[in-house]
Formats: sequence, C-alpha cells, structure tokens
Amino acid sequence: MSSRLSVVVVGAGYWGPNLARNFRASPDWDLAAICDLDLERAQRVADAVGGVRVTSSLDDVLADPTVDAIAIATPARTHHPITMAALEAGKHVIVEKPLADESARGIEMVERAHERGLVLMTDHTFCYTPAVLKIRELIADGYLGDILFIDSVRINLGLIQPDVDVFWDLAPHDLSIMDFVLPGGLEVATVAAHGADPLGAGKSCVGYLTMPLTGGAIAHVHVNWLSPTKVRQMVIGGTKRTLVWDDLNPQQRVSVYDRGVDLTQVSKVTTADARDANISYRLGDTWAPALPEREALANVAAEFAAAIRERREARTSGRSGLRVLSVLEASSASLAAQGAPASVDLISLNERMTS
Amino acid sequence: MSSRLSVVVVGAGYWGPNLARNFRASPDWDLAAICDLDLERAQRVADAVGGVRVTSSLDDVLADPTVDAIAIATPARTHHPITMAALEAGKHVIVEKPLADESARGIEMVERAHERGLVLMTDHTFCYTPAVLKIRELIADGYLGDILFIDSVRINLGLIQPDVDVFWDLAPHDLSIMDFVLPGGLEVATVAAHGADPLGAGKSCVGYLTMPLTGGAIAHVHVNWLSPTKVRQMVIGGTKRTLVWDDLNPQQRVSVYDRGVDLTQVSKVTTADARDANISYRLGDTWAPALPEREALANVAAEFAAAIRERREARTSGRSGLRVLSVLEASSASLAAQGAPASVDLISLNERMTS
Amino acid sequence: MSSRLSVVVVGAGYWGPNLARNFRASPDWDLAAICDLDLERAQRVADAVGGVRVTSSLDDVLADPTVDAIAIATPARTHHPITMAALEAGKHVIVEKPLADESARGIEMVERAHERGLVLMTDHTFCYTPAVLKIRELIADGYLGDILFIDSVRINLGLIQPDVDVFWDLAPHDLSIMDFVLPGGLEVATVAAHGADPLGAGKSCVGYLTMPLTGGAIAHVHVNWLSPTKVRQMVIGGTKRTLVWDDLNPQQRVSVYDRGVDLTQVSKVTTADARDANISYRLGDTWAPALPEREALANVAAEFAAAIRERREARTSGRSGLRVLSVLEASSASLAAQGAPASVDLISLNERMTS
Amino acid sequence: MSSRLSVVVVGAGYWGPNLARNFRASPDWDLAAICDLDLERAQRVADAVGGVRVTSSLDDVLADPTVDAIAIATPARTHHPITMAALEAGKHVIVEKPLADESARGIEMVERAHERGLVLMTDHTFCYTPAVLKIRELIADGYLGDILFIDSVRINLGLIQPDVDVFWDLAPHDLSIMDFVLPGGLEVATVAAHGADPLGAGKSCVGYLTMPLTGGAIAHVHVNWLSPTKVRQMVIGGTKRTLVWDDLNPQQRVSVYDRGVDLTQVSKVTTADARDANISYRLGDTWAPALPEREALANVAAEFAAAIRERREARTSGRSGLRVLSVLEASSASLAAQGAPASVDLISLNERMTS
Repeated sequence: MSSRLSVVVVGAGYWGPNLARNFRASPDWDLAAICDLDLERAQRVADAVGGVRVTSSLDDVLADPTVDAIAIATPARTHHPITMAALEAGKHVIVEKPLADESARGIEMVERAHERGLVLMTDHTFCYTPAVLKIRELIADGYLGDILFIDSVRINLGLIQPDVDVFWDLAPHDLSIMDFVLPGGLEVATVAAHGADPLGAGKSCVGYLTMPLTGGAIAHVHVNWLSPTKVRQMVIGGTKRTLVWDDLNPQQRVSVYDRGVDLTQVSKVTTADARDANISYRLGDTWAPALPEREALANVAAEFAAAIRERREARTSGRSGLRVLSVLEASSASLAAQGAPASVDLISLNERMTS
Repeated sequence: MSSRLSVVVVGAGYWGPNLARNFRASPDWDLAAICDLDLERAQRVADAVGGVRVTSSLDDVLADPTVDAIAIATPARTHHPITMAALEAGKHVIVEKPLADESARGIEMVERAHERGLVLMTDHTFCYTPAVLKIRELIADGYLGDILFIDSVRINLGLIQPDVDVFWDLAPHDLSIMDFVLPGGLEVATVAAHGADPLGAGKSCVGYLTMPLTGGAIAHVHVNWLSPTKVRQMVIGGTKRTLVWDDLNPQQRVSVYDRGVDLTQVSKVTTADARDANISYRLGDTWAPALPEREALANVAAEFAAAIRERREARTSGRSGLRVLSVLEASSASLAAQGAPASVDLISLNERMTS
Repeated sequence: MSSRLSVVVVGAGYWGPNLARNFRASPDWDLAAICDLDLERAQRVADAVGGVRVTSSLDDVLADPTVDAIAIATPARTHHPITMAALEAGKHVIVEKPLADESARGIEMVERAHERGLVLMTDHTFCYTPAVLKIRELIADGYLGDILFIDSVRINLGLIQPDVDVFWDLAPHDLSIMDFVLPGGLEVATVAAHGADPLGAGKSCVGYLTMPLTGGAIAHVHVNWLSPTKVRQMVIGGTKRTLVWDDLNPQQRVSVYDRGVDLTQVSKVTTADARDANISYRLGDTWAPALPEREALANVAAEFAAAIRERREARTSGRSGLRVLSVLEASSASLAAQGAPASVDLISLNERMTS
Repeated sequence: MSSRLSVVVVGAGYWGPNLARNFRASPDWDLAAICDLDLERAQRVADAVGGVRVTSSLDDVLADPTVDAIAIATPARTHHPITMAALEAGKHVIVEKPLADESARGIEMVERAHERGLVLMTDHTFCYTPAVLKIRELIADGYLGDILFIDSVRINLGLIQPDVDVFWDLAPHDLSIMDFVLPGGLEVATVAAHGADPLGAGKSCVGYLTMPLTGGAIAHVHVNWLSPTKVRQMVIGGTKRTLVWDDLNPQQRVSVYDRGVDLTQVSKVTTADARDANISYRLGDTWAPALPEREALANVAAEFAAAIRERREARTSGRSGLRVLSVLEASSASLAAQGAPASVDLISLNERMTS
C-alpha cells in the first residue's frame, strides 16, 4: 500500500469524535489535526484519540500542503462554504449528511469537485454496515434479478426534533441506502409525501414517501416518531429473489427468499387470459448470509482513501448526497401540495456531468 | 330468548357452506334452506350440515312468509338485484363483501333497507374475530385516547387475481376493520393510492393507500401480493396508548403499549420553543389482553339476529360496506391520476340518512 | 403401481376417523370397512368418508381373505391382543402409539411379525411431517456431520391427563422423532428422568429426560404442562452444521446453521494446551429449506403400503415403537429412583432379531 | 446522605476497570486508588477514569485507615487470602464471582466477615440488572404465588474455556439469579448434573442441572457452548402467574402471564377422580412491566454502600456466593457419578450462622 494520506477533522461536536477515532485507527490515514472554533472542545477530542494537534484556524489547515483531505462534521448550513474553500485549496472532502442545506448549493459543491478532479464524498455511514454492503453486492451480482419494489420501515418512539420533521430526520437513512444498493442509484422522477401531525407539534411526526422507479417498480418509505415499537426493516423484491433486511435481528439480519411470482410474458399482445395462464409461483429455500463484524465508519475511512487513490468517485459520492437532498426537497414540496406527487429535478445534473 | 329466526343461504359456492354451517350451529337461527341455481351443489352443502331443504328458486324463497332473512353469497354483480328483491319482499339481508359492484348501486340498497326498516348487514367477517372485537371495545372505552394514526400491513405471496388488483383483493379487510374500530367509522374525505405493476400483470400487485383522518390523524394501508413473507399487522396510535395487532402471533395477538409522546398544548400562540418544552415521553408497561376463542362467523350470525331483534343497524351495516366500497372506488380514481388524492363522496349519504 | 391394498380401520374413537379419511384418500389403499364394537360410532365415521361397510366383528375382518391389513386405533391395552390375532391371521398391522402398554408385550408383537414376515408399523405420525422427513434426510446425507447433541423442548399449558404423567403424554413425540432421524435410531443404554409435581396432581407435570448417546453425544427432552407459552423446538447439533426445528414458526420451521466449533484432534496424547490451540469457530450462512405442504397421515398411509410391497420394515417399525416404549419405562424407573439413571434393556432384542 | 465511603479496587485486569469506572461515578463512593502488582496496568485504569492514585502494595492499602472497603477483581485462587487479610484489617469487601476457588475457603471468608461484623458482598452483577431486580420484587410481593418451577436456558456459540467446563463458565449466572429471586435463596439439598463432551474437548461443553426445590418444585439449567443460536431465557412458574424473562428481547424482556393450571386440593385423601375434577385453567392477560435503564454495576456500587451503612448483609452476600459455589461443587460431583444426584452441603452453615 502507498503511504498514508493526511486528514483533518473539522468540527468537534457530536459526530467529529467518531470520525477522529476511525481515521486514527485506519491504516490508510494519518489524523493530522482536529479543527474547531472551540479549542477546548477540540482538545477533548484530541485527548480521547491519544493526542493530536488542535487548531481553531480553518485557513491554516487549508494552507497546509501536507494535508490531503478534510472531514467536515459541522452544522449543515456551513457545509457549503467550508467545502468550497477546501476544494479551492485542492483538498479532498468528506462531509456529513446532509450534503448541504439546499440542493442548489449541493450542486455547486458537486460541480466544483468534478471540475477540480477532487473526491467529494458524503458520509452515508449506514451504507457501510456489513448488511448494506452485502445487499449492494447481491443486487449488483444480479442475485435478486430486476428490482420490483423496495419497502422500508423506520419507526420508533423518537425524539421530536426541534428543527426538522420526521422526513428530514429519518428518511435520509432509507434514501441513502436505496441510492447505494440500487444499480442505477435513486433516480426517481417524482415523489409523493404524505405526513401527519396529529399531536400539533408543528411538523410531520408520521410520514410516508412513495417513489415510482423505472420499469414499473416502486419504492416506499414509512417513517414514524410515534410508534411504541421499534422497526428497522427493508424488503427488496426482485424478479429472481426477495431480500428482507431486519436490522434489529442480530441473529439473522439479512434473509434472501427464493420465493415469488413468475410471469412469463409471451408477447405484447397477450390477452388477459393468456397472462393469467403464465403466472407461476416459486416456493424455494431461504438463505441468510453470514455477515462480518466491522464498524461502518472504518469502512467509510477506507472507501474515502480508496476513492482518492483510485481517482474515482466514492461509492457514496457528493452526487448521491445530492440525490438524497433532492428527494427530500421534493418531498417537502409534495407535502405542501397535500400529497400530490412532486418532481425531483436532478436528472439534468447527472446528464450534464457524465457527458 | 325469543324464538329462532329463519334464514335461507343463497349461493352454494365458496363462502355459502361456511354461512350454512354457522347458521345451522347458531342458537339464534333456523337454517331453512340452501338456494342455488345448481341444485346438486346446493345438495352437497345441505348434506354437509346434516340435511336441509334445497331449492333453485329465489322467488319461492322470497315468497315464503316463514323466512325472515336471506344470506347472500353469490357473485358481486348479483348482490344488487337479489338484495333489492329480498328487501322488496320484506326480508332482512346479510350480503357478502363487497356490498355491491359499484357504490351507486350500494347506495340504492342502503336507502331501500332504510326506508323499509329492514336490516342490511355486510358480512365483514374479520371484524368479528375476538382480536378485532377487543380492539373496537378498547377504543370505544377511550383506552387509547384520540386516534393519531392507523398503519396496516397485509402482505403475502398472494395469488394474483384475474379480475381485481391488489387493492380490491386485500384492502377491503383493512378498510372494513378501520371502519369497525374507529369511533366515527371510516369517514375519510380523500384517499391517495400508489400502485405498482412491476411484473406487467396488467394490474397493481403492490399498493399503498393514504387517508387523512379528522384531527390531523392519518390512516395508511400497505397491500402486497409479491412479498415472500407474510405480515398481517395493524398499529393504532392514540394519545394515551398505542395498540399493535399482530394476527400471526397467536401467543400475543393484541399488545397495548403505554408508551408514547405527550404534548401539552398550553396555548394556540405557543412558540416553537415553548412547544419543544412541552414534549414528554411515557415509557410504561405493555399489556396483552386474553382473547376468547370463538369463530368469527358465529359472532356474525349472532350480530345479524341481534340487529333484527333490537331493530337497529348491524355493527357492520350496509353503510359500512358502502364506505369501504367508496374508498376503494376513490382509490382507483387516485391510481388513475398517478397518485393525486381523490375525493370520497359519501359524506352526503350519511348526512341524508341520519337526518 | 400394483393394485390397491385393502385395509380395515379398527376403532372409531378419537384417531380412527383420521386414519379412515387418509386411507380413503390414498391411491395405495382401499378402505374396506370400519370396525368398532359400537356400530353407531363406526357408522358415523363411515358416513364422514362417504360411505363404507361397518362391522362390529373383528373375527369377521380377520377371516376375510381380501383384507390385507388392519389399522388399530383402540385403547393401548388392547393393542397386544388385536395385533397378535391379526398377525396370526396373516394381516399386516399399523398400530397407534404406544405400541403396547408394556414393553414385554411389545417385544412379543415385534417378534411375531418378524417370524411371520408381516409388516408391523407404529403410527408415529409426527415423523411424517415435511419438516421431520427433511431433517431425517439431511442427517442421513451427512449434512450435519456426526450428531453432538439433541435438545427438544415441548412445553405448553397442557391438559393434565388423568391416567399418565407428562413424560408418557408428551415425550413419545420427542423420542419417536429422535428415533426416526438419528442414523442408528434411539439406541440409548440409560436414561435419567427428573420430574416435579409442584401442584400435588399426583404425577409429574414438569419433566426432563437425559440420555447419553454414543460417541459422547447427549439427548435431552423438556416436557411441561404448566408453561403459559407454547414451545415446540428441537436443536440438533452436528460436527458440520446445526439444525433448529421450530415447529411454531411456519415461515421458517427448519433452519440449518453453518456455525459451530471445530476441534482438530491431532493425536490421542494431545495435551490440554494443544487442544486449545486446535479449537476454531465457523460463522457461516444460515439456510432454511423449503418444505412441501402435505398432511403427515397421507405419508403414513403411503409408507405402510410401500413397506408391504417392498417387503421391508416400515420407517417407523414396531421396533421403533418398542424403543420409545422402553425409554419411557426406563424413565419411570429413574423417576422412582429420584433421578438416578436407569438402564434401557432393548439392545439385546435388536441383536437377536438382526442376527 | 452521609459522607462518601472510600474504596480501593484491587486488580486491574478484565473486570477491574468496570468496577473503577462505576465507583468513580457513584455518589456513594470515593475511588481512593487502583492496586495491582503491575503498576503500568493500574495506571491505564487510573487514567481511563480521569486520574486516581495507583499502588502495587496491598499492605499499604489495608494499613490505610481512611480506606473503608476494597473491591477484589483478581484471579479466583487469590480471593481467599486477599479477603481474609482485608477483613483482618477491618475493611468491607466486595469480591468477584466465584467467591473462592473452593467452598471450604468460602466458608472461612463468610464466617470471618460475620464475626468481624463486616460486609462481604459477592459481585453477582447480573442480579442488579433492571429485569432481575423487577423479577425479585414481583416474587417477593407474592405476585407469582408459590414457585412451581424455574427453567433457565443460557446457550450460545461460546468460547470453550481452557480451565473450566460449561457448568462453571455459564451456570453461575443462572444460579446466582435463582438465589437472588427465590424468597429463601437457592436452598437446594441435591443437584443432578448431566454433561456431554461430544467434541473431545476434555470437559463438558453441553450441560444440564436439575435441582429439586422445596414443596415439590424444581429448578433446571441448560448451558451450552455449541448452540449456533443465542438464547438467554428464564421461565418462572408460580401458582398465581408465570414469568418469562427473555433477555435478548429488548422490547419485552419480562412478560408475566396470568395463565396457568389451578388445582384445588380438597383433602389429602382425595381420590384420583376428585383430583381431576378440581383442575381448572386460567387464560388471563399478559403484562410486561416497563423497566428503567440503569447499568447493573451502578446498582452494585449503591447496594455495597447501603449494606455497609445499614449494617446488614448485601443482597448478594458472601453466603449467596457460597451457595452458588456449593451447587457448582455438587454438580461436579454428580457429573463424576454419571448424573446420580449429589448432596449440597451448605444447609448447616446457614443454620450455624443465623443461630
């Protein structure tokens, strides 16, 4: 392996310590410093990882030619200015979700990274859990066949957030995972959002998202702060097999069912009767792959390094962060329109950038 | 108890034998005859219950003054003419779901029964299971408080029906149960339906229904023919407690959680900050009521008799069948409009009839 | 297939109707008659299967040269005389469990059938469920490797039987299944039984059986009438894989875990340290085979016919019934001796008969 | 509250850091020092809790008049000499389980503490989890009625220990919990142990313990290192209700079933028939109490302080550690005798000390 890369963690609040700890433990990285306006807070994080330089000056960090990358764990509204400055200074960037506080700024960030040939990665941590990595691999290998539906439930007695509704609080997890495992990413044209605020909390506490996928498939997300039971489950139906991910069942998180409906389409002019005749049912085995035990953030650190070294996009790129952000924005628009489906305006960006 | 009532079962196909068996075993009823155009089929049903008269003439049945009621288990399109003739002849009627093949006809049936002072009951069998009866009772007693949300999941590897989509096949169960347990019935103004036909079966095989309820609450139904796992679960969140009905867990079908979010609304001009300050969380006990073992159809027969004797509407009245039908029709309209919410036009009927 | 065999069901009480129904539906069998001293009861069973001859004379049945076999569903104490008479008359016999009311009589029955070249089958119905058939097949194919332990739990709020304790009521199921799936059958030399009668019911209501198996393995059974929860679970640990059969989980009754401990035994003089060095752990996949849907008694009827035609022992032979009986008798002896292990004296029989 | 007590943690290996952290955080305690022959190891523990004195001299610790108590987390064979020296020096003692490496030494420790009026507590940590504390409370309040049976299962793919068998590794948990929740403690006269070493590991890897309790009740423990699935479950049947503790179900760890068998004993000369007539079945509700979230070791620290201040035995006293030790020793004796029940010789001690 080539020599280590050098990273500075910017932001020593809630998530920064986790990033610091994992970069410190990574064989790919040297943790060069912790940067926070509150030097005392930075020092506590530095101590916890066994000692590292602290600074309150982002300018100094960006001016330091030995620093390869920065990891941003600051409030969402600061993601854009810090990222733009870092890219300007030639640094690779990994940024906490959400990528930015609005998609227009996210687009700027993505385009700038693209122009400068730098890696801009979104820290969708959950995508790097062993279960989700395995799901992505199975789908990519064609093990499920074409995707027919994705249904995700993330409900719990949750803290009602002061600044965001249940969609912005919980759905980023489901959406970023869908973006990660679907072969083409979460390329949706419209989203319908239905929310409820039955307690009068001033924001949705129960929510449903529906997104048509290509080929007649559908994705659906149920998020709920008011459920007394905790559910973290995703069902991914495919033409060949169907996968159920139950994150709260440590003894069998991922199950693959070789059961389903087969429909043999003989011709496009098939009549209704012929159609029925061509339906058959498979009732095969169930299989649950063994999953390695590895902390997701260790995988995040490794992926960030690999993307830089291989001069490629990270698997959770800035563009994936942008797709998630765009769906959330469209959800808010749909919600404001009483559930009428709203357009997700991101297709153009991808076309522009891949051309 | 007064003397027994006399009933004729019309239709000896799939469901008729179950009706015949339960009327036969009921202390409230005399099973007078089985009526079917196919006399041989009628005879088989008659034999199975230990012998009873058979006939192929509905006219004779309706002309018989000793017959108090008929139970209709014929195809949906015949529900309207048979019911209208029976009401004309002064017979009480219980009819298989759906009440009729379209709501306009259903309205006629309901209005005619109303005018004639006869009982028109819809056989929403599932409402009479011990679990659903207990849920209705708990809600009516205020045990859950005001309803905040109802989320129902009914998924399974299901037979793709030749004539109906997944909404019309499965959602009637969820909708009739919601109508049964909600204090005011399923009085929804709009419904949004999102469906998917990813196999090209010519109809939705995966579907989601969303219905705003009064007071900011929400109801949601997930039906799916393509799921390899079977789920029959309904969560009913209330201001006081939340109930989970898991019909596939015979050891604990109904659980009531004394956990939830409390929001003390001090005033209408409360600021966002004040609001947050007034959120609190309850983490109380869970309780699972013991449920008696009794076949739902036995309860149906008893309720039909009781409604007749007490000269009242049945708990699953013609109007409840009509509400379910209207929501399904609106669902189809929403589906045709790519998920834009569609109006449910039934409020007027209820107003007209209760005035 | 050769022409059908002819069978008479003797005993029209609790189990006889099930036998009659399955022999009637079997392509292998002609149900010739129902025989019961109570002719009225016999007639009811005959009617239920669509009509068949009834008789109260066992002598007539046995004298009838067209009858190939009889199926005995009478009280346990009558199994011996009826079976002996039937074998004398040259009839094949299938007999309800227990084979006899005491093993000495069971031995006579087994030896007589052996001498006359007739099939004597014990109706261990549970062995013919799709799950148990699959377990037997997997073990026979070496899929689990050598068996290390079998742990069976069968607990439930059960009816306290007037005449037998919890061992004789429930353990025959576990023991007959173990006998069925273990490659060499349930060849145990001793059994220790621990029971408790904490309610003062006059017999054990909670019980545990422990049986050393060959090669250092162990079998254990927990039966309990006082448990408020219902458990029907068997774990079979093998050197290669471990199987869990959870009969109350219809979605995944049989799971095979490719996890376990491997111990490489280099030599017999290995020291403790060397031993530790040779322990390793496998953490592989889980696999749940699809199981066909078929009533167990249909398989019983088919096996009985096949054993007769192929002139071989049935898979649940008289000898297997005898092994179960012998373990139960030894259990009672151990129980009387406050749990001191008691000998099971059956090895000799098998040696005698196979020589 | 009175002023804080002063404690020194002796032993900085596996468990010592946990003790140090919890004494440090306790409002009842001042953590005075960490004592270990390996000063470097002691220093690491001291640093982790934010700095505290370290020493390698137990003599100095015991000579220090400001030290009230010591917490011993050293290997089992050193528990006796360290405890005896500490008691001699007038210090209260909490000691890791097992209390000692053999019961004869444990008796000396218990008697010495008794004579000197000092608290000798065994750190049965699991007893102080919220679930077990609740179970103890429910039983003490008579909520379950008289205990009929206790069945504990603790199975897992476990590390095969180099020095102890599966009984000594896992059963101390079950036994100490039984001792904690049973009103009279684990007062058993005999124990039967059945073990298996099917892999040739040189010690039992699968084991069963059976202990008759007073009044015809029974306790049973199943421990297993070879199970691919993890189970941590205890069922406690009582005359009034039955409790199931499933430690791996965080959403419902403790369930209380109001179901069971009632037996009305009219007289001692009741005949079998009369007995049957007096059996009835309750099928009542299930109830799952909410459990607080609190680390067990924090409760341990609080109990140790309370016992000292209130001059009483700790709830997990030296005697309870001794009872567990005695049962384990008797288990080994039973194992050596091929499962014949072995006597537990501790009753005398309790009689001697309470007199």
